[in-house]
Amino acid sequence: MKKNWKEKLYEVIYEADTPAGKWFDIVLLFLIFISILVVMLESVKSLDAQYHTELLTCEWIITILFSIEYLLRIICIKKPFKYIFSFYGIIDFFSTIPLYLSFFFVGSHVLVAFRALRLLRVFRILKLVRFLGEASQLKEALKASRLKITVFIYTVLILSVIMGTLMYLIEGAESGFTSIPRSIYWTIVTLTTVGYGDIAPATNLGQFIASLIMILGYGIIAVPTGIVTVEFSKQAQKINTNTQVCSNCHTNDHRDEAEFCYHCGEKL
Amino acid sequence: MKKNWKEKLYEVIYEADTPAGKWFDIVLLFLIFISILVVMLESVKSLDAQYHTELLTCEWIITILFSIEYLLRIICIKKPFKYIFSFYGIIDFFSTIPLYLSFFFVGSHVLVAFRALRLLRVFRILKLVRFLGEASQLKEALKASRLKITVFIYTVLILSVIMGTLMYLIEGAESGFTSIPRSIYWTIVTLTTVGYGDIAPATNLGQFIASLIMILGYGIIAVPTGIVTVEFSKQAQKINTNTQVCSNCHTNDHRDEAEFCYHCGEKL
Amino acid sequence: MKKNWKEKLYEVIYEADTPAGKWFDIVLLFLIFISILVVMLESVKSLDAQYHTELLTCEWIITILFSIEYLLRIICIKKPFKYIFSFYGIIDFFSTIPLYLSFFFVGSHVLVAFRALRLLRVFRILKLVRFLGEASQLKEALKASRLKITVFIYTVLILSVIMGTLMYLIEGAESGFTSIPRSIYWTIVTLTTVGYGDIAPATNLGQFIASLIMILGYGIIAVPTGIVTVEFSKQAQKINTNTQVCSNCHTNDHRDEAEFCYHCGEKL
Amino acid sequence: MKKNWKEKLYEVIYEADTPAGKWFDIVLLFLIFISILVVMLESVKSLDAQYHTELLTCEWIITILFSIEYLLRIICIKKPFKYIFSFYGIIDFFSTIPLYLSFFFVGSHVLVAFRALRLLRVFRILKLVRFLGEASQLKEALKASRLKITVFIYTVLILSVIMGTLMYLIEGAESGFTSIPRSIYWTIVTLTTVGYGDIAPATNLGQFIASLIMILGYGIIAVPTGIVTVEFSKQAQKINTNTQVCSNCHTNDHRDEAEFCYHCGEKL
Repeated sequence: MKKNWKEKLYEVIYEADTPAGKWFDIVLLFLIFISILVVMLESVKSLDAQYHTELLTCEWIITILFSIEYLLRIICIKKPFKYIFSFYGIIDFFSTIPLYLSFFFVGSHVLVAFRALRLLRVFRILKLVRFLGEASQLKEALKASRLKITVFIYTVLILSVIMGTLMYLIEGAESGFTSIPRSIYWTIVTLTTVGYGDIAPATNLGQFIASLIMILGYGIIAVPTGIVTVEFSKQAQKINTNTQVCSNCHTNDHRDEAEFCYHCGEKL
Repeated sequence: MKKNWKEKLYEVIYEADTPAGKWFDIVLLFLIFISILVVMLESVKSLDAQYHTELLTCEWIITILFSIEYLLRIICIKKPFKYIFSFYGIIDFFSTIPLYLSFFFVGSHVLVAFRALRLLRVFRILKLVRFLGEASQLKEALKASRLKITVFIYTVLILSVIMGTLMYLIEGAESGFTSIPRSIYWTIVTLTTVGYGDIAPATNLGQFIASLIMILGYGIIAVPTGIVTVEFSKQAQKINTNTQVCSNCHTNDHRDEAEFCYHCGEKL
Repeated sequence: MKKNWKEKLYEVIYEADTPAGKWFDIVLLFLIFISILVVMLESVKSLDAQYHTELLTCEWIITILFSIEYLLRIICIKKPFKYIFSFYGIIDFFSTIPLYLSFFFVGSHVLVAFRALRLLRVFRILKLVRFLGEASQLKEALKASRLKITVFIYTVLILSVIMGTLMYLIEGAESGFTSIPRSIYWTIVTLTTVGYGDIAPATNLGQFIASLIMILGYGIIAVPTGIVTVEFSKQAQKINTNTQVCSNCHTNDHRDEAEFCYHCGEKL
Repeated sequence: MKKNWKEKLYEVIYEADTPAGKWFDIVLLFLIFISILVVMLESVKSLDAQYHTELLTCEWIITILFSIEYLLRIICIKKPFKYIFSFYGIIDFFSTIPLYLSFFFVGSHVLVAFRALRLLRVFRILKLVRFLGEASQLKEALKASRLKITVFIYTVLILSVIMGTLMYLIEGAESGFTSIPRSIYWTIVTLTTVGYGDIAPATNLGQFIASLIMILGYGIIAVPTGIVTVEFSKQAQKINTNTQVCSNCHTNDHRDEAEFCYHCGEKL
């Protein structure tokens, strides 16, 4: 009997196939969204001064609801530790704890904003095959280009250190290049074409080198784009290939022009 | 008899195949363009002080012409409600109304700038097959990548909330990170590599985190580009293929110029 | 006899195959480069104050040499008007005239900087097949994507007008949005991710709309990249195709898998 | 006997296959990293004031270790001059010398930051086939697109000179366009979408031209991306192709997993 109750709860909390499960997830997402909004509004001085009590009350109500949800998740699952140390388990824990911590550490309740990560659950609720397919395609492509991008970023960082030092030597403290770490920060700001302008070269030589760095950054920005595009293109091709299956050995993924199975030689 | 008159008007106003229809559309586009220009010039204080009466007169003339056009469009169509609630019908209504509203609400006549949307009609006039083909290719590709881009933007927004909160905690109000919403605004400015510099990190840790966000944004900018490129590439391939099939060996995928099957030599 | 002399001159000036022709072009490029450098240095106040006479002398010498070259080009060609109204003919004329104009209009001699366009001749001198191939590939690809890019830019401009007006209404003059044209300028600065920061939204709503525009710009930047990449890709494929030529009808450009000529059915 | 000792040293220093060789390289990388960190910290005024002696001592220890390593590298190799004038040989020399130079030239020891280039050795240690493959793919693709990118950058530079001069004429010194070289610097900052905002157009005409330059830059940024993407795509395809040819019908381009010809069913 008790086991049955746990199983029902499990269905509602962890799955989104039943109407109850769907509603649970939608309410949850709504609460997460409200809770993030509350933290944001609290950080605006003028609003906090006026509605401090209301906002704090709202936050406490949501935190208590989240605490109950967290406990229920642990109770109704068969292997609680697997949940607790899973990706979502850890996020759920750190989404609940900040407000309690604020008794001991002033300001720690803003960490509630990390609840934003819980919004990733939306992909689970929108259990539309299409959406999951799109997301997993993106994930696969990024995973496949991981190595190339590591090599690329490592090279960019070495370049930034050298360029940063060079600009530190040329410009000096007057135009904001006060130290090598700050010059490296400037180099990254320039290479990525962000360009705040809080630090900008003032000497002629500095502006000349800066122009070179920008044109370099122009070319460099093409590299990750190229890598990712090629991977996406591969993913897209994988999905587009034909649906023929060999009647003899059940191999699929044949060429469009194939007349014979490439695996067993059977005529298709 | 009366029906005949309506039909003629319909041809002139809604179609661009006859010379009269073409001229009507060209004059219309010219008026739209002038009317936008007038609103722009009016917003420049020095010009408005000097030519206020002239500009206002010009605006009223165009508005009255547009009102007549709007009424004619309703009169000469068979199903007026279908037009009124269509995309262009709504735009036409909101392009005409602002100046009348300015009797009641001061400043509302600047909404006239929304007439700019009417300029989209240009694609209808330039009824060149090529232009429409290009535009529809772009539209198809963007439509096909809609889902992937939704997943992508949703993830970027979650990331911005978390990064924004982190920067708010690290930097504080001195360097412009006065509230979490403002920090999120800064994060988006940085991730998209816009980088105004109205808010910029001043602490060492803040600049370090900012560098990480920039390099992240560098990689992230590759994602929509990759998605769109792959879709364009698919569109381009779709258009280039040829649906001829060889009657002898059933090979397809022939060149557009092909007169014989490239596989068996049979006449196509 | 006289004709012979003209023909020789023609070979030296217009062609780069003979040693004399090559040297002529190299000296010419060098003079163009020097003349641009001189104009640049003249515009730097501190340098101009010190070396005004030297720089001006240098400019006059080059201008006289260019005038002689221009006259020789007209003399030695068979159809002078064809040269005078050609692309390079017009550039050459406007590269020579500014300094003479400076007698009548103060400051017009800085137009000498348009001599930079003459540097495009470098591609003619570097008559390496590879270089020309690369350049023409780039040109072909950009030409093929011209229509798509026109549609794209037109849509972006309409969007900029609407967004600019919206921001003008929201922000007002305090944060730099003093008129609609200026707001449109700001919108373009933002959409293209340039982001100077000379004008930046200060209100909460303005920053929210600005964030939306940036994310839009993020997606929009993917469009021209996608268009150009697909065109490049097509160009690259065109060049890679096989070199088989039909022995019967001399058609080339066959598929790699082709066993029979696609044009006449002859076995390849 | 002596030769044997040299050979052992060679294995440790130049190779990374033996455990000793691996450890040598890891310690070396660690020292390089520390030495770069020390130079960075030294450039921060507040830290340098407090820990000057410690940082300098640390730097001297590492420099002496590097000097020993450099000498050992020369001693244990058969053809010392080949090493000395190799890419890494030159980097190693310039990584060791700056601190010694600081006896003669004040400030020259910051050149130690060029030790960052030594970090490129990491790719040798991570002698994982995968990593090297990725890096060489990137290198190949960039090499193949070198010519196209040269043509592109040359054209962009000519454009920058012309646009820069134009803006210098329009804007003048008030808004920061004090000389043509500075205007060209601004044009590059704008075309590459960096946009510092240290120099920004203030006149209406200037802002209009600037808008055109930005939209141009928008299109231009697509070019290197397109070039690099196509090259990456070619590289990726090259690696995926398979050189098997069917012995019966000579069809090639088989899948890597194929055991039978997809065209005639013959065993490969």
